[in-house]
Amino acid sequence: MERELRLRLDLGYDGTDFSGWARQPGRRTVQGEIEDALGRVLRLDAPPSLTVAGRTDAGVHARGQVAHVDLPLAALAAASSGRAPVPEDPEQAWGERGAEWLAALTRRLAGVLPLDVRVHAVSVAPEGFDARFSALSRRYGYRVGDAPGGVDPLRRREVLWYARPLDVDLLNAAAARLLGEHDFAAFCRRREGATTIRELQRLDWVRGEDGILLATVVADAFCHSMVRALVGSLLTVGEGRRPVEWPAEVLATAVRDSGVHVAPAHGLTLEEVRYPGPEELARRAAATRRVRTLST
Amino acid sequence: MERELRLRLDLGYDGTDFSGWARQPGRRTVQGEIEDALGRVLRLDAPPSLTVAGRTDAGVHARGQVAHVDLPLAALAAASSGRAPVPEDPEQAWGERGAEWLAALTRRLAGVLPLDVRVHAVSVAPEGFDARFSALSRRYGYRVGDAPGGVDPLRRREVLWYARPLDVDLLNAAAARLLGEHDFAAFCRRREGATTIRELQRLDWVRGEDGILLATVVADAFCHSMVRALVGSLLTVGEGRRPVEWPAEVLATAVRDSGVHVAPAHGLTLEEVRYPGPEELARRAAATRRVRTLST
Repeated sequence: MERELRLRLDLGYDGTDFSGWARQPGRRTVQGEIEDALGRVLRLDAPPSLTVAGRTDAGVHARGQVAHVDLPLAALAAASSGRAPVPEDPEQAWGERGAEWLAALTRRLAGVLPLDVRVHAVSVAPEGFDARFSALSRRYGYRVGDAPGGVDPLRRREVLWYARPLDVDLLNAAAARLLGEHDFAAFCRRREGATTIRELQRLDWVRGEDGILLATVVADAFCHSMVRALVGSLLTVGEGRRPVEWPAEVLATAVRDSGVHVAPAHGLTLEEVRYPGPEELARRAAATRRVRTLST
Repeated sequence: MERELRLRLDLGYDGTDFSGWARQPGRRTVQGEIEDALGRVLRLDAPPSLTVAGRTDAGVHARGQVAHVDLPLAALAAASSGRAPVPEDPEQAWGERGAEWLAALTRRLAGVLPLDVRVHAVSVAPEGFDARFSALSRRYGYRVGDAPGGVDPLRRREVLWYARPLDVDLLNAAAARLLGEHDFAAFCRRREGATTIRELQRLDWVRGEDGILLATVVADAFCHSMVRALVGSLLTVGEGRRPVEWPAEVLATAVRDSGVHVAPAHGLTLEEVRYPGPEELARRAAATRRVRTLST
């Protein structure tokens, strides 16, 4: 059997001009761009398939996105040998020059990919690693500027401009009431046939020196549009239109509330994906896979 | 005579889609956008004229740009009265509600201007203030990312990607040799009929936690393309292609050197303009105006 190698890709993108992560025919997607670039650089007959930690929606950005891809070692050897003859024993050549090949692959992807998506690092995935199912948690940032004059133009693609002043204490008081394990159905765009029970590990707001409010949101996983719905409900509190208790009340009903407006995509960035140590990777992946596919 | 009021505008822009600051027929310029927005918001017969601290080139950004504009008080009163009758005594109304009018003007400009240019604050200019001639110094930032995988896509519009690794110690060693008052003709795109003697007050490089190199460049004033030519010469040193002494040698010749490549516009941002205290403003303006118009 052909020897395959699982690679981990650390990557980021400006989501503005993408129809989201997931490949769709006829649309410009992040997955499509990276898969096509890998296919080109490695001269594969067909683009390889990526598995990603967070399938972001159209317009959402990422700084610390993680994906994995399984590639035939022979193809990697062939593409990496440059003008030298293709190694007869790819396995041995990999042992000798693997690190070099990965560095070259990173540089080549940087040359081939459009500037709004970048693969920052390519590394060998540890045994049992699955970019999606091994993840312990995802950290998102949501950025809002509420200055009457608007947002620094150089940051306008990743910062929502909110024309009414926001109170960071109100935002935090409302946010704190949402922490912990709950059924987040009220903040999920639709029931997906899988559980909407999630553990919200962190949700807080900080106003930076530049005046911009940053919400940090960490959970084991998120259902569709969850971060943006949470942020949308908090902004209503932050500007004083709803009481501090309101988002928690919505949460408790466990049904979608028409008063919750999903905040715009462009304020949202996937910042980091956390994984367990090497010895836990496979066990975590198996456990997560089991839970996510359970019907509710 | 009609009473005019001098306003100070603090503003920023993403220079990517502008043909620079200065108004040019048939081109999209920052000056043109702001003057037109002011004309619209204040319902003037013709757009007013802005005077700016730093006339940036096409593609150059600004965060701390400063401009002034002289506006008829009556027009400001009329546009600010909303549905209330236009005040009969604008002078008195200004005294009572001036601060309110300026806040309203800021909000309205934010609503009318495109998102790639923002007027963050409008204030009354102190006596003797001239955005250009009163300035003591300008601070520019030039940002470069040299990671092999490229630059964070969300910052690609203001960070140059340099595909070869840069040594921050080499950059700083070369930069330090350029400080002080010199004839910077070697780094000016052309002789402008005025002096090319400038005082370079600060020029240093720092690598941030995000890995991005930031050059901070401060001078009393800059001749055309000076910052980008300085940065271009330093980058050649930073990657090891030229010795540390080279930029200072070029400077000493006082003639343009074909080995100096002007660094791309998009890495450059005008960060701050410094002015003296109120009592010094007019004196500074008169002195600067005299020096700049002297032929060399």
